[in-house]
Amino acid sequence: MEGDISMKKIVVAVDESEESMHALSWCLGNLSSQKATAAANTSTSLVLLYVKPPPPLHSSYDAAGYMFSKNDVVAAMEKYGNDMINSVMQRAEAVYKNFNVNANVNIERVVGSGDPKDVICNAVEKLRADTLVMGSHGYGFFKRALLGSVSDYCAKHVECPVVIVKHPDHK
Amino acid sequence: MEGDISMKKIVVAVDESEESMHALSWCLGNLSSQKATAAANTSTSLVLLYVKPPPPLHSSYDAAGYMFSKNDVVAAMEKYGNDMINSVMQRAEAVYKNFNVNANVNIERVVGSGDPKDVICNAVEKLRADTLVMGSHGYGFFKRALLGSVSDYCAKHVECPVVIVKHPDHK
Repeated sequence: MEGDISMKKIVVAVDESEESMHALSWCLGNLSSQKATAAANTSTSLVLLYVKPPPPLHSSYDAAGYMFSKNDVVAAMEKYGNDMINSVMQRAEAVYKNFNVNANVNIERVVGSGDPKDVICNAVEKLRADTLVMGSHGYGFFKRALLGSVSDYCAKHVECPVVIVKHPDHK
Repeated sequence: MEGDISMKKIVVAVDESEESMHALSWCLGNLSSQKATAAANTSTSLVLLYVKPPPPLHSSYDAAGYMFSKNDVVAAMEKYGNDMINSVMQRAEAVYKNFNVNANVNIERVVGSGDPKDVICNAVEKLRADTLVMGSHGYGFFKRALLGSVSDYCAKHVECPVVIVKHPDHK
């Protein structure tokens, strides 16, 4: 393999959690330790994957029972979703600007919509990722207990190696 | 951090499965891509962890109902256990001899005894590992269904990042 240029694609699932930012840091820490070799014969594509909630289809009532026109709700949700994407992607950018990631690492942003576990598994497959990196809690304690852990599901269902990174404070 | 010598400890759980050897290959592939930097300022300790079954305590009967003296059974089990350790460690050696792992990677062998999930989690904690690498099936389909997956358990219970590597044939 000496002399070949190899291309690696790493998908990092990012969300609002501290833990997903810690997973991104872990990944960048490993990439920057590969700097010297990477410059020689490896190119890495780092995909930041954010999953926003699916658009609302059914309820046009808020918790207090007021009715909004469906368009208002959809517009508000879309604005909220877009604000969230920007906020998460900006945090991710702040994280990777702290690392001396070399020019052979190309960073892409991908936004999906739907159930996070399905979107992540589908994206990993479609992007033909070599590795998936994610936090272990991500979608919160109660959602985890209710829906099962997203990272558990992805570790079982994607074909590539999965790295599950925990935040040091969440043991 | 420039100029510091950092020490990384990676534990790879190895057993009789093809998948655990594939996990070891994946890990060595990543380590050998870090060659140039590793030579400069990183030292890696790769711990091959094998868990042998606990010594038998209760039954002195074999399946057909013959009774053996307890010493015979213990001796036979111990011999079987030792043969298995040698066989797994030799396969692991054959795997890592295929990779040009540089001199800054120090390989250790550790053998534990007991329930694999507890032994692996305890070893990772005691050795203060930075990363745990393991296959996703390891202890076989039926044992997995009965006992729950060892990798699931470890991913939940160890504090360091866990890499779960699947054999390409086991999707």
